[in-house]
Amino acid sequence: MSELNQNSQQDQAWMQRAIELARLGQYSTKPNPNVGCVIVKDGQLVGEGFHPKAGQPHAEVFAMRQAGEQARGATAYVTLEPCAHYGRTPPCAKGLVEAGIAKVIVACPDPNPLVAGKGVQILKDAGIAVEMGICEQDAAQLNRGFLKAMANGMPYVRLKVASSLDGRTAMASGESKWITGSEARQDVQHWRAISGVVITGIETVLADDCQLNVRQLNGVADINTVVQPKRLVLDRQGRLPLNAKILQQPETVMVMGPFRQELADLGVLQFAVQPLKDVLQTLSTQHQIYDVLVEAGATLSTAFLQEWLVDEMISYVAPTFLGQTARAMFNAEFDRMAEQLRFKLIDLTQVGNDVRLRLIPSQETV
Amino acid sequence: MSELNQNSQQDQAWMQRAIELARLGQYSTKPNPNVGCVIVKDGQLVGEGFHPKAGQPHAEVFAMRQAGEQARGATAYVTLEPCAHYGRTPPCAKGLVEAGIAKVIVACPDPNPLVAGKGVQILKDAGIAVEMGICEQDAAQLNRGFLKAMANGMPYVRLKVASSLDGRTAMASGESKWITGSEARQDVQHWRAISGVVITGIETVLADDCQLNVRQLNGVADINTVVQPKRLVLDRQGRLPLNAKILQQPETVMVMGPFRQELADLGVLQFAVQPLKDVLQTLSTQHQIYDVLVEAGATLSTAFLQEWLVDEMISYVAPTFLGQTARAMFNAEFDRMAEQLRFKLIDLTQVGNDVRLRLIPSQETV
Repeated sequence: MSELNQNSQQDQAWMQRAIELARLGQYSTKPNPNVGCVIVKDGQLVGEGFHPKAGQPHAEVFAMRQAGEQARGATAYVTLEPCAHYGRTPPCAKGLVEAGIAKVIVACPDPNPLVAGKGVQILKDAGIAVEMGICEQDAAQLNRGFLKAMANGMPYVRLKVASSLDGRTAMASGESKWITGSEARQDVQHWRAISGVVITGIETVLADDCQLNVRQLNGVADINTVVQPKRLVLDRQGRLPLNAKILQQPETVMVMGPFRQELADLGVLQFAVQPLKDVLQTLSTQHQIYDVLVEAGATLSTAFLQEWLVDEMISYVAPTFLGQTARAMFNAEFDRMAEQLRFKLIDLTQVGNDVRLRLIPSQETV
Repeated sequence: MSELNQNSQQDQAWMQRAIELARLGQYSTKPNPNVGCVIVKDGQLVGEGFHPKAGQPHAEVFAMRQAGEQARGATAYVTLEPCAHYGRTPPCAKGLVEAGIAKVIVACPDPNPLVAGKGVQILKDAGIAVEMGICEQDAAQLNRGFLKAMANGMPYVRLKVASSLDGRTAMASGESKWITGSEARQDVQHWRAISGVVITGIETVLADDCQLNVRQLNGVADINTVVQPKRLVLDRQGRLPLNAKILQQPETVMVMGPFRQELADLGVLQFAVQPLKDVLQTLSTQHQIYDVLVEAGATLSTAFLQEWLVDEMISYVAPTFLGQTARAMFNAEFDRMAEQLRFKLIDLTQVGNDVRLRLIPSQETV
């Protein structure tokens, strides 16, 4: 193996370590991105850190503190381009220069086209060698929403669906408990916990009296460190009952519908009725909500899909047949195969006795 | 590790080798079972073989021929209990005795309760040590149909279904080409090739003019060595057109329906109209057909499922939505969740951009 390849493999291994560190903040940094940093000198780890929570130091700061004097002449691996701006903390790029870091390896560039490259420029101006793009795909996975929102002002939208093998979500009567097993229902908690908001429709709230919050992470993380997602109810006719369970934490509830004083009194944030796309843009640009999870019935799910607003569909399939009079999961009406809505399968996992597919919309035919 | 465990691990490794050999006959031995044999002396492989085709020698014969004099004092690993009867070949149990084999390790006992143990008895009577049940589950996988049919006279029935993620098999118009991708359609050829018969309904033949034979195995096996499955058309009203493509090889076609002289003239085997269960029993007990693949439309597939005649469902799911007016894959009508037809997931595989689930019916609830 060439020396170049060896270096590259070592770089990748350190960057993967930085990505794992970044992941430790996945439920708690929102609206900030997940970032990890590893500092290596003479092939030895001398410092590491991750951004744990908005308002707390960035990953580079923790890593440099741990490295101390050993940072001088060392290589820093950072999953996201070091910041160049003065926010609640001084710019990390300057911090790396002052610590005497010799080389910085970055996975993802700053996603904001207006500021991208400024952090790197500070480093280069100080004579620091900079390498970009190591493990970029893996690092980007952790910050899907942040990266998309910074780039184009729209959040990353995940649509969760759960159905029987014959594509049904409930009996005709509405009876639906339970189609998927407890493991699949538990798995949904992860997607809620990485999201800034869970969007649902009023029909789902009326039928299930759901709360759509994060209640359990099965030991993956301390539930108390999770920044809970907001819950947005689309309620065009103002039917949300004031005794709905979801209003037990009204300060984290949003409602799109006609203005209601009693909701305002509870502290609920209200949006005027508007197209779905506009709601999403508002969430991103005005409320720093970059990851959206849609958990809704067939009508709303179908609307999100047909308006091409879904970036990723997370589909749980239970191996059961509910029959042809049960409720359809997707209620569009197509006459020809050419109208079908196709997806590309990006991940397939067994969850308990159910199946989880992660899918992205595709224009390709078979 | 104890010596016992070491022995057991070595035994399992040799038996896995025998199972791999047996698999080489998976498309060509029907109606005979797949059997592999490995002969080991002083830790060294001295002979191996598999049963390639009905009428040709059994696995043990090939292995003993290769081992020659080295068989004396050796251990033989056989995936199925050596036969005790004189058929087209002399009993293998006697052959092993005459070759001077010291020990025989068997994965699966003879499945026929009337003759089970007779092969082992011949070996024991000759002073040969016999061990049973090593890797029995893995070995049994290869002979699902044979084992079931020998035990209770019914074939092993696989139901193949293919649907969109929303549980549809075609548009309302009948348009259905293609929902799954070419890899999934190719994968179906394997299940046909291990089957003694493919059962379909007249509606499918009329709609698709299908042949349901094995046309390609993608280099896994020489297509010319495959013993082609029979094709059984369920045609209660005698509508099968004489120019249907499936009748191009009439000698491998069976039809259940009112007797038609023109089909008899072509050499087509005909069954009187009878319950599905009786057809299956007839195939097994009178025609040595032990593995049945059902490839049919929703009505017939639903009937097989609701009559509890399916041992395993092989479900291909294409990540696409066809909408609520498209044809349902399962056309039973249930009012309550308690009526649902549940399955246990035994295997999950990505096939191209589609998903293959292997499922067995389950009485369990979530």
